[in-house]
Amino acid sequence: MDCALAMARAAGEAGEVPIGAVVVKDGRIIGRGGNSPRRDHDPTAHAEIAAIREAAAHLGQERLTDCELWVTLEPCAMCAGAIAHARIAKLYYAAPDSKGGGVEHGARVFDHPQCLHRPEVYAGIAEQEAAELLRGFFRERR
Amino acid sequence: MDCALAMARAAGEAGEVPIGAVVVKDGRIIGRGGNSPRRDHDPTAHAEIAAIREAAAHLGQERLTDCELWVTLEPCAMCAGAIAHARIAKLYYAAPDSKGGGVEHGARVFDHPQCLHRPEVYAGIAEQEAAELLRGFFRERR
Repeated sequence: MDCALAMARAAGEAGEVPIGAVVVKDGRIIGRGGNSPRRDHDPTAHAEIAAIREAAAHLGQERLTDCELWVTLEPCAMCAGAIAHARIAKLYYAAPDSKGGGVEHGARVFDHPQCLHRPEVYAGIAEQEAAELLRGFFRERR
Repeated sequence: MDCALAMARAAGEAGEVPIGAVVVKDGRIIGRGGNSPRRDHDPTAHAEIAAIREAAAHLGQERLTDCELWVTLEPCAMCAGAIAHARIAKLYYAAPDSKGGGVEHGARVFDHPQCLHRPEVYAGIAEQEAAELLRGFFRERR
């Protein structure tokens, strides 16, 4: 999660909402992503999507079976859907997101039969650090 | 929708599940996408995501306000989330998808307060043609 937090910090320094993610396989990071929709002019450029795309390209396959995704905020519906398509085995996230989350809030993407794969989900890892990073970002912008 | 169907046909000929999408602004197509997760080694490479990314890059901004998305199949949760992030004004889709859909089935992504933008949704345009394209694809592979 330390590396995901570092990606989040870098995103924040670039003026993006500070969210970061990494994909891990066999204890090694094979994909990293920072939130970058503004810089990239791409509404899909969330940290999770970037990390998943990088990891899949690295493995040369569309599925990330046996991989873990670590991300600093509860994924939104888009990213939860991507996690399911990628067949990510384990999802670890730091802070919950009652306003935009799609795992334990809102669409609850993994909780429907239309979701073809449900990862194991572990929430609350380094929650305070991730939440403070987001609070600080929005505080500065007010 | 004819152009989206053409993108779907091309995807099918390339061995991908035949789904296609276009983004339209002021009556002009500014983004196109065919389903391509296998070819691209990218689990997020759905037709809608490709069309949205191309359109946003074309406009040089992360939001597709005043744009329409036309797609041959009901979007999944991932793509519905991307449509909301992109602020697509109107979504037109051909066939419903009871197994993987996330608009009128399953996660129903637009129907939660955590969804920050809900497009106008029009379903059933060229439904038979799109559904037959998918049926034919899976029939050949059995």
